[in-house]
Amino acid sequence: MIFSSSLVEKAVNEFAKLPGIGRKTALRLVLHLIKQPKENAALLSDAVQQMRTELQFCKRCHNISDAPVCNICSNTMRKQEMICVVENIRDVIAIESTQQFNGTYHVLGGIISPLDGVGPDQINIETLLQRVNSEEIEELIFALNPNIQGDTTIYYIAKKLKDVPIKITTIARGIAFGGELEYADEMTLAKSITNRISANHYITSGI
Amino acid sequence: MIFSSSLVEKAVNEFAKLPGIGRKTALRLVLHLIKQPKENAALLSDAVQQMRTELQFCKRCHNISDAPVCNICSNTMRKQEMICVVENIRDVIAIESTQQFNGTYHVLGGIISPLDGVGPDQINIETLLQRVNSEEIEELIFALNPNIQGDTTIYYIAKKLKDVPIKITTIARGIAFGGELEYADEMTLAKSITNRISANHYITSGI
Repeated sequence: MIFSSSLVEKAVNEFAKLPGIGRKTALRLVLHLIKQPKENAALLSDAVQQMRTELQFCKRCHNISDAPVCNICSNTMRKQEMICVVENIRDVIAIESTQQFNGTYHVLGGIISPLDGVGPDQINIETLLQRVNSEEIEELIFALNPNIQGDTTIYYIAKKLKDVPIKITTIARGIAFGGELEYADEMTLAKSITNRISANHYITSGI
Repeated sequence: MIFSSSLVEKAVNEFAKLPGIGRKTALRLVLHLIKQPKENAALLSDAVQQMRTELQFCKRCHNISDAPVCNICSNTMRKQEMICVVENIRDVIAIESTQQFNGTYHVLGGIISPLDGVGPDQINIETLLQRVNSEEIEELIFALNPNIQGDTTIYYIAKKLKDVPIKITTIARGIAFGGELEYADEMTLAKSITNRISANHYITSGI
């Protein structure tokens, strides 16, 4: 692509660095911004700049935050004795968006994966153990992806806490809502039968 | 989507205003920027802001430019007597990227389309006529999309210039490179036979 403006070229190059955005898409975005009022470009520009410079990570749960402690951890209406352990920020947003969980989170920032060189020390496990030991935590809910790395991580943390009187659970694995039994893999179907739940669950909602 | 950071939420909202970018994609872009060094977000932010505030439109050809006159119009190595008339900036970038055209451009900024309320006065036709009358222009090459609006625009301009001794051409319409004859529509195939070109064209390249 050849541009007659270095300003446009630079903007296209920067957009094209973003994941999933090629040069043609980047050009489309830039031409869109050119057509829009200048204020719109300023809004985008400022939002990106401010987000990146002012964003903090909660010192308690490592979630993204506008303050040293995030608004979930500082919300006294939420069950502070319940921690949902997730791999990353995206998972917090996904679970928050269901509006079904009223506890707190702990963002590991990764998952134990020896093959990728990620051990327990590379992720936020130590701070989780500290929280369990110093705060009055009643339950850890592991909401990790159902794979070997997720299971290894749960196993590692559960073992570290074997002497602490705390309830440890994982999110249910089963047939997805809207999914069809005949297309489910055997492992999932088997687990969904073994871990079948009382139908009362459908009547009493929430956690 | 529920965020625990208003900074992230604002950035996601701004990205999601861009064409073809939904909230999930916007979130992916924002989380990518969070993982990257702060400088990368600053580069994007500055490029967008600078592009939108400093970008100009060439006062001669209406193309995007870093200066009052674009670097195509001010390039004495290019054939200033040859004008390629296009609908928009995107077309200039497309033709420039072929590296086969060595003349100048004129960006109409639209196309005559009475049904959409776009008449000759709404697009940059007057400045084109002025250029033809005041500069020593030898040829106008219309590179407009092959449809009724494009043909109407060519007809209108050609009629305005009927007393001016100037060559008026349009880009060739025919079977696209890599296209297959059997799938071409009849109109295109018919035109490609009527306007067949000498095979010498394949030997002498360029315009």
